[in-house]
Amino acid sequence: MSDPASFSLPHVAKLHAYTPGLQPGESGWLKLNTNENPYPPSPRVAEALLREIGSDGASLRLYPNPTSAPLRAALAKHHGLKPENVFVGNGSDDVLNLLVRCFCAPTAAAGFTWPSYSLYPVLVEIQDGRAAMIEFDRTMRLPLEKIAASHTKAFFLTSPNAPTGVGFANAGIEKILASFHGILVVDEAYAPFAGENAVPLLARYPRLVVVRTFSKSHALAGIRVGYALAHPDIIGLLDRVKDSYNVSRLSQAAALAALGDTSYYDAIIGRIKATRDACVAEFSTQRGWFTYPSQANFIFTEPCDARGGTGPNVAKALYDFLFARKILVRHFPSHALTASFLRISVGTDDEMLVLSKALDEWQKQKPTPA
Amino acid sequence: MSDPASFSLPHVAKLHAYTPGLQPGESGWLKLNTNENPYPPSPRVAEALLREIGSDGASLRLYPNPTSAPLRAALAKHHGLKPENVFVGNGSDDVLNLLVRCFCAPTAAAGFTWPSYSLYPVLVEIQDGRAAMIEFDRTMRLPLEKIAASHTKAFFLTSPNAPTGVGFANAGIEKILASFHGILVVDEAYAPFAGENAVPLLARYPRLVVVRTFSKSHALAGIRVGYALAHPDIIGLLDRVKDSYNVSRLSQAAALAALGDTSYYDAIIGRIKATRDACVAEFSTQRGWFTYPSQANFIFTEPCDARGGTGPNVAKALYDFLFARKILVRHFPSHALTASFLRISVGTDDEMLVLSKALDEWQKQKPTPA
Repeated sequence: MSDPASFSLPHVAKLHAYTPGLQPGESGWLKLNTNENPYPPSPRVAEALLREIGSDGASLRLYPNPTSAPLRAALAKHHGLKPENVFVGNGSDDVLNLLVRCFCAPTAAAGFTWPSYSLYPVLVEIQDGRAAMIEFDRTMRLPLEKIAASHTKAFFLTSPNAPTGVGFANAGIEKILASFHGILVVDEAYAPFAGENAVPLLARYPRLVVVRTFSKSHALAGIRVGYALAHPDIIGLLDRVKDSYNVSRLSQAAALAALGDTSYYDAIIGRIKATRDACVAEFSTQRGWFTYPSQANFIFTEPCDARGGTGPNVAKALYDFLFARKILVRHFPSHALTASFLRISVGTDDEMLVLSKALDEWQKQKPTPA
Repeated sequence: MSDPASFSLPHVAKLHAYTPGLQPGESGWLKLNTNENPYPPSPRVAEALLREIGSDGASLRLYPNPTSAPLRAALAKHHGLKPENVFVGNGSDDVLNLLVRCFCAPTAAAGFTWPSYSLYPVLVEIQDGRAAMIEFDRTMRLPLEKIAASHTKAFFLTSPNAPTGVGFANAGIEKILASFHGILVVDEAYAPFAGENAVPLLARYPRLVVVRTFSKSHALAGIRVGYALAHPDIIGLLDRVKDSYNVSRLSQAAALAALGDTSYYDAIIGRIKATRDACVAEFSTQRGWFTYPSQANFIFTEPCDARGGTGPNVAKALYDFLFARKILVRHFPSHALTASFLRISVGTDDEMLVLSKALDEWQKQKPTPA
């Protein structure tokens, strides 16, 4: 009897799935590994969900609005755009996937900087597409010329970048748009924690796509809502390749309610930024660890052991030390620019104090053997 | 300034989006057009959602289980299979889309019978894939030889079929599996309303994939959960092409709760089948309309006007007559085998009485001009 997987497309049989951060099933973990928001969503979210569910969940028997039209209208208003500039997807991962399906194929390359969000190469592989990977150097400055020379149909830039947290100013993004002649997707998953974002550029650059998510800034990773802001023609392409009913009734209701509570989110985003800035200062000044300036809700830092040593083994040793204490952070060992670092999501002040004490303890330990 | 859509893949620029049935925003409509369940979901669904939301929705800040592992385990138990036989997606449309991505390309055809679920050709077009469309004749019998001769990597068969409601016995499905040498996807969106289903065949046929949904039988179209049952190697392929966090926390919780309330669903499915059988009898015996035997939660019937005339214009006239009375049904004018018919979802007995009175009124009208 023939192997059923042998009927699959050859590139699918060879795929490696994206590895998401650990989501431990049991409680008791301090989760600083997947950049979730440490604060609950706006109270209006639970209220809106209870309204949608009603006494017996009867509305759930009906299909959702297929285009999330009320949410698109609210997002347009929120960003000073028109509804035809907005696409809503099942998380920003879905939006990124659909963009790859529109612009990338075996004959049409998609580009991205590296290290960056490790989902991009996976999405390109699923599409059997050609990839152009543009390497950063340790300065993490935008490799402008290389992007322009990539000759890709679409280029994905994460800003602020992951896992470094480094943000790119609009001036740099405008330089890319002047020299690169394709679709520029700026993945702004973390932009609400940054000083600047590319939304104001949309009016002038029809080849710009800004991708956002409710997962981080809006404390709604569990509901899977992301969106794209772009020229109506690009939104029209996404509408043609999306699933017909891609966002559930409850997710639409939750996102809509969250969007309406600006003051709540301004407050928690402000708190996260303050905690982040204090932690970056602690890591770099007090501990003397090389730490990138962060415009996101996480910190990318290069730990030094008691002997002042750094490197992949030191980072891995600290990861393991924290793991043993049920503190989860993220280590990316597969690239030279990330292997000596840890990415630590910004939690509450109390959570960061727990982390800080664990780091103190680790730094007092005998150094890791080289 | 160049048109931003000009950067898209040529086949994407030419795509026609799938047209879902109307979802009117305002109330007052009798919705018999998208095969939603007329009864609310099990009361356990609302309870489970309220538990997940808690007092402040705090759990929503966390990503969902990336593989919907608890739901896969429960589905495996429900169907007498193992968790590695189960894949969970964002509605069965997502599952079908991922199957197309695994098996269909410009060089690898996907097949489907026609008329059938009109999403298949859209999914194949999005993939820029080759399609093999096998036409039914008016008997709606399985075109076994043509399927075997299609030489496709994957063949999609809706059973019970849409929009006809005709179910295919396992004997016929086994005949396909004996003569067709590819992956056979049996799309069982409506199987809980049928006398037989293909799940018992899975143990013996590693090339069989059964796709199910919570939308119809479980009255949860609003939450977007569908699943595939198949050999672990096929599940492994789907896991490689899926979105990392494809199903929201709330959707997982709702589906899990629904699955646990078998007696509730047995009762409402039983009621829908009784209403359906009474309506089919009314249409065929009392009204004398040609009506396919339905194994689904909808009825496909060929209306006759007062003069006994049938045809596309008659069906369209009845559609319009009902629409004017805020009764929504579905008309598929683009195919000779469907254009003279209407597809009517089975509602409650009271709703079908409202429909029945409207049909009486229409039949008394002056006939439609030919």
